[in-house]
Amino acid sequence: FDPKQKPEYGYGKYKDVITNLEFERLLNAAGPTGGKILRPSDGKEPKKIAFIQCIGSRDHRVGNPYCSRICCMASIKHAHQVKEKIPDAEVYVFYIDLRAFGKGYEEFLERTQNEGVIFVRGKPAEVYQKPDTGGLVVKFEDTLLGEVMEMEFDMVVLAAGLIPRVDSDVIQKLLKISRSPDNFFLEAHPKLRPVETHTSGIYLCGCAQGPKDIPDTVAQASAAAAQAAIPLMVGEVVAEPTTAYVDEEICGGCRICESVCPYDAVKVEETDKGRKAKVNEALCRGCGACGAACPSGAITMRGFEREQIIAQIEALLTVKGE
Amino acid sequence: FDPKQKPEYGYGKYKDVITNLEFERLLNAAGPTGGKILRPSDGKEPKKIAFIQCIGSRDHRVGNPYCSRICCMASIKHAHQVKEKIPDAEVYVFYIDLRAFGKGYEEFLERTQNEGVIFVRGKPAEVYQKPDTGGLVVKFEDTLLGEVMEMEFDMVVLAAGLIPRVDSDVIQKLLKISRSPDNFFLEAHPKLRPVETHTSGIYLCGCAQGPKDIPDTVAQASAAAAQAAIPLMVGEVVAEPTTAYVDEEICGGCRICESVCPYDAVKVEETDKGRKAKVNEALCRGCGACGAACPSGAITMRGFEREQIIAQIEALLTVKGE
Repeated sequence: FDPKQKPEYGYGKYKDVITNLEFERLLNAAGPTGGKILRPSDGKEPKKIAFIQCIGSRDHRVGNPYCSRICCMASIKHAHQVKEKIPDAEVYVFYIDLRAFGKGYEEFLERTQNEGVIFVRGKPAEVYQKPDTGGLVVKFEDTLLGEVMEMEFDMVVLAAGLIPRVDSDVIQKLLKISRSPDNFFLEAHPKLRPVETHTSGIYLCGCAQGPKDIPDTVAQASAAAAQAAIPLMVGEVVAEPTTAYVDEEICGGCRICESVCPYDAVKVEETDKGRKAKVNEALCRGCGACGAACPSGAITMRGFEREQIIAQIEALLTVKGE
Repeated sequence: FDPKQKPEYGYGKYKDVITNLEFERLLNAAGPTGGKILRPSDGKEPKKIAFIQCIGSRDHRVGNPYCSRICCMASIKHAHQVKEKIPDAEVYVFYIDLRAFGKGYEEFLERTQNEGVIFVRGKPAEVYQKPDTGGLVVKFEDTLLGEVMEMEFDMVVLAAGLIPRVDSDVIQKLLKISRSPDNFFLEAHPKLRPVETHTSGIYLCGCAQGPKDIPDTVAQASAAAAQAAIPLMVGEVVAEPTTAYVDEEICGGCRICESVCPYDAVKVEETDKGRKAKVNEALCRGCGACGAACPSGAITMRGFEREQIIAQIEALLTVKGE
């Protein structure tokens, strides 16, 4: 997420307002500062740092109502690292809810609290620069004290939320998979089939499915590999028996079926009898979209012929023993 | 977790203080009430229900500092179900932090808020029964308002945290695996090997490793299956080359090695020369505990003989080109 979409926090306007990823680079021994925490504007060591959570997460105004899951722990880690490298620094973390849900996470949060990091419940409204000192003023409501306050910092780190890759619509079309309302790729079933998609042979893991931390990503990646290994081991793929078929006598070759098929399974081809639709049964998933769209009624699903459905209804309506 | 360990909430004392699992049973169509929400004391429909989070989680006083991860969403689901079955019921959820971190969780939390469920930030201190009405009074501080308040409810649901199975020490000894400080089984590496243990061939998943919801458990279970499939597919297990070996001339048969070995790999046996320690190399993981404990210095690790270590140190100390 690009924090410039939230101009009230001053990202892009003030040099010392940076993202959590940029802060991660500062900490990196191979990074621009050789692992030293120095503020970008003047290269000095900051003595008072604010971490602001949920920038572009849990925020309807930018269209991201979901939690990005990793930012709380990332900021808590960063706060701990500041205390380690600059022991006399004052570190504030502004949050809505502290989501330390993983194994050992709560314990790590507590350790950081004991190190002196101050956690303030409340999402700041604004960050602005003080003209005289050049310091960054964070305006916030401490919801636990019920007071609106302003505090000056040397550096502000914004926990920018996770959003799907910009090219995910290209991948979506390429692989014929769906996306959930949050625009991440959609799993076949959130509880029971968390790594599968509705397209057989395509599996999901990590942040493709939604924001996720490293342990959960590694576990899910192994799971996706396991699922992918199943058809590879079996050596053959069982196709849907409920595929579409075309009555060439009726088909007018209008190409409507071609345009509605989500799996690219129907193609109109030139035949001796003119242009006719052809179904690739290996690709067809039996969704019925082509059949419903066909204006001449030329496409039917196997197992769902009109007579079969009527026979089923009749069987249902027949009272037992009659 | 047994909420009787937190007597201030009145579980076991008042009939209408129940756990989230008991509430789940009430909702079950095959449960004691046929799916109807009825309070246990008089079978009447409760009109005001309190859900209290973190009973036995994030609580040092009962020795469970960790977050149980699933209770927030379980209680939010229950609150939603109350609103669905008893639309005019007043539903309160008392929490420390709302941990709606998974895919679609935040959206579900918001939906429940829009349905009229009231979320109060603050862990109640006490639940007691009002003698005249029989109602349950919850005493809490609304930390967002900064006020201590009392409110009467018809039913109180305690979100009891997750603790490891009581027999996990038996399994620990049987499988020779470790446990983390929270007493759940320990993974080989929290980030990189989240489903493996330090004992080869033993894999972890689900709540054995730590509190976990269904999607994460299913993903982790597939991952564990994938990891377990690797040695099964290869058909052979590569043993540690760094195993212990016993100099039978020196071994006094004192059995200390036997007692310290965490893998049951050393056994003292009767030989022609008296009682001598024997190493089962298939079981030995080369941890070195026996060698360090042996009072006569009879046990050494292969590849770590005294001469080899001295040679390594000498090689390190030799200046290049000298």
